[in-house]
Amino acid sequence: MIVQKFGGSSVADAESIKRVAKRIVETRKAGNDVVVAVSAMGDTTDELLDLASEVAPIPGGRELDMLLTAGERISMALLAMAIRSLGVEARSYTGSQAGMITDAQHGKARIVDVTPKRIRDALDSGYVAIVAGFQGFNRTTGDITTLGRGGSDTTAVALAAALDADVCEIYTDVDGIFTADPRVVPKARKLDRVTSEEMLELAAAGSKVLYIRAVEYARRHGVTLHVRSSFNNNEGTLVVNPKEGENVEEPIISGVAGDLSEGKITVVGVPDVPGKAAQIFRTVAKTGANIDMIVQNISAASTSRTDISFTLPKSEGAVVLQALEADRAESGFESLQYDDQIGKLALVGAGMRTNAGVSARLFTALFEAGINIEMISTSEIRISVVTRADTLNDALRVVHTAFGLDSDVDAVVHGGTGR
Amino acid sequence: MIVQKFGGSSVADAESIKRVAKRIVETRKAGNDVVVAVSAMGDTTDELLDLASEVAPIPGGRELDMLLTAGERISMALLAMAIRSLGVEARSYTGSQAGMITDAQHGKARIVDVTPKRIRDALDSGYVAIVAGFQGFNRTTGDITTLGRGGSDTTAVALAAALDADVCEIYTDVDGIFTADPRVVPKARKLDRVTSEEMLELAAAGSKVLYIRAVEYARRHGVTLHVRSSFNNNEGTLVVNPKEGENVEEPIISGVAGDLSEGKITVVGVPDVPGKAAQIFRTVAKTGANIDMIVQNISAASTSRTDISFTLPKSEGAVVLQALEADRAESGFESLQYDDQIGKLALVGAGMRTNAGVSARLFTALFEAGINIEMISTSEIRISVVTRADTLNDALRVVHTAFGLDSDVDAVVHGGTGR
Repeated sequence: MIVQKFGGSSVADAESIKRVAKRIVETRKAGNDVVVAVSAMGDTTDELLDLASEVAPIPGGRELDMLLTAGERISMALLAMAIRSLGVEARSYTGSQAGMITDAQHGKARIVDVTPKRIRDALDSGYVAIVAGFQGFNRTTGDITTLGRGGSDTTAVALAAALDADVCEIYTDVDGIFTADPRVVPKARKLDRVTSEEMLELAAAGSKVLYIRAVEYARRHGVTLHVRSSFNNNEGTLVVNPKEGENVEEPIISGVAGDLSEGKITVVGVPDVPGKAAQIFRTVAKTGANIDMIVQNISAASTSRTDISFTLPKSEGAVVLQALEADRAESGFESLQYDDQIGKLALVGAGMRTNAGVSARLFTALFEAGINIEMISTSEIRISVVTRADTLNDALRVVHTAFGLDSDVDAVVHGGTGR
Repeated sequence: MIVQKFGGSSVADAESIKRVAKRIVETRKAGNDVVVAVSAMGDTTDELLDLASEVAPIPGGRELDMLLTAGERISMALLAMAIRSLGVEARSYTGSQAGMITDAQHGKARIVDVTPKRIRDALDSGYVAIVAGFQGFNRTTGDITTLGRGGSDTTAVALAAALDADVCEIYTDVDGIFTADPRVVPKARKLDRVTSEEMLELAAAGSKVLYIRAVEYARRHGVTLHVRSSFNNNEGTLVVNPKEGENVEEPIISGVAGDLSEGKITVVGVPDVPGKAAQIFRTVAKTGANIDMIVQNISAASTSRTDISFTLPKSEGAVVLQALEADRAESGFESLQYDDQIGKLALVGAGMRTNAGVSARLFTALFEAGINIEMISTSEIRISVVTRADTLNDALRVVHTAFGLDSDVDAVVHGGTGR
């Protein structure tokens, strides 16, 4: 049994839908049971959001979910029709029909149970089952919910887990997971295989191919993902879950990711007494912002004050600055600085766990290229550094080469995401 | 409690939705419980049908219903948002959430039960309840269905019946039911009141304001309809159900309707022996065509053959001709004639039941205007005649005048239906 997920750019118009239908029919005719999770067509979601903002300044979450879920209803029905017209029976199912039970948080619901009885029945009847991605429903309220960004990936993975599928194929407009973004690093190499642990770090570090939530779900439920292109039949990248203690020969480094979407806040002159740093981060946490790297400078003995810097999505910068400013008297810091011209580079590899010298090689490569490092943070399988935004792409290429990731040929880049 | 129905042209864009929302809020603030049935925005349904025909030559009924029901999902969610932004709480409900239980005939499902528990709960909580028109679901299959043409009117009436509403308001782009189509007969008068029996005859005779099924449903369940304009606050037309024996002073004639959508088939030279006519109509019935007026000429004694003519929607002409032709040997007729240039005029009024001389006045008026009558059929409260298509509009005006229906002023005509 195979679960296949097609995103909005794969079903953007009638022609694309017919192409996807053909691929699904081929998979079915090869003898597989096939379940498909599909997103809304191309720009449908944005168009619906525009309409919502025209009729109401603050559309309620329940109604917004009701509105947005019309998008997959359209794409899934059309896809089922297209498959049927190729001679294979297909049925489409909404999130609630497919048993995607969620909590009641509209706009970012979490899956609490999957009861895919109708999907099993459809497969038993020999049908291809098309399921609306991104949507579920809450049993208590009886209301429709959506899963938030990357929700269709999560739908596909959750179905694969509940149905015990052999593989969950995520179709996209690139050939798989690369050692770096091929648009920035032309010599990026496609990875045949990556662990879910590495994939999580890459996604967190800015790789846009898979969403963190879907990878987490796959990891927790032991689902094997296969990320591949909907434009060709090449093998893509397998995202695997090696068992505890399984002897997998890991390459030291699986890839390098860059991210220009973050900014840096520096809280200057924080009194170096216990509890002050904690208070600052409590204030930040109250805004709901996702802070990432944190660095605290060693305090100058003369002043007994210290600087604390952290990175966060630029979209959350203003709110956090405001919250900190409001709390200044309590926290006792001297001033705030905001820098939205930073770039973040992350080097990821399960192999670096057992391999000394990775940091040294990274810093050397950047130093030799004249690229300044402003912040550093590490985990067991990742090293992240902050550079100036305008040096990030150079940094990515230099590091890619330094760790021997370069391919002999340039990568082929398709139409770009978010079409 | 008031049920309000808004059609696609009333919610064609964000501005229209906001205008409708304002009206609903006014009704709510006047102290009424309000339930709204809403159609898909403007051309949404046609656009979805176009998409379907692009991906599949013959889209299946189940998937087509799944596709089309996305339309009301969009309009109802937007309408609920717009109402909420005016400070009144509103919730939208799909057909299945609202308990519109239907049989399993996709594309033309019939309502078998209405269990509006969630709507009652919403009203009890003080919400305005917005319900998707046109859609329901089948309990056995668990699948989504649609009610076919005029389905949103039927949804509104069925909700009004199940909730025991005081009135079901049908909002449209004309001021109510007129004695004739104001676009053809400028001196047409708005009726303040019409019986459901008359309304049924008017709808069957080509009046497009209400659909027959909705009027039938209202009649059977004793729902009072109020047909009115969504562009002003004028009183419209009440469609009432006088009780058996209730002494209602009826005007003799309530209106005159014209219809150019029918054609006429004449089966020439049918052997005048028992059973031949029956056989012809069995053949026609098998095609599912809706035949209307039937006329059988007196057979010429010399030939023992007769001609049978009947009218039917032009869209069904080809299929019926083909079926008759295939059956010619069995039926023994000589030839088939098809005429698609006919017009049908119907004069409707409950008062004609007790008033002799209506036919005579009708025929005289048409004769004096030089308009030829080709077929005649009568019921207790209706007289229909077939004329040449190009004389129909003249016939409508002449008859309207002859029965004293003319208003002193010309009717105001709004933007036209089906926008």
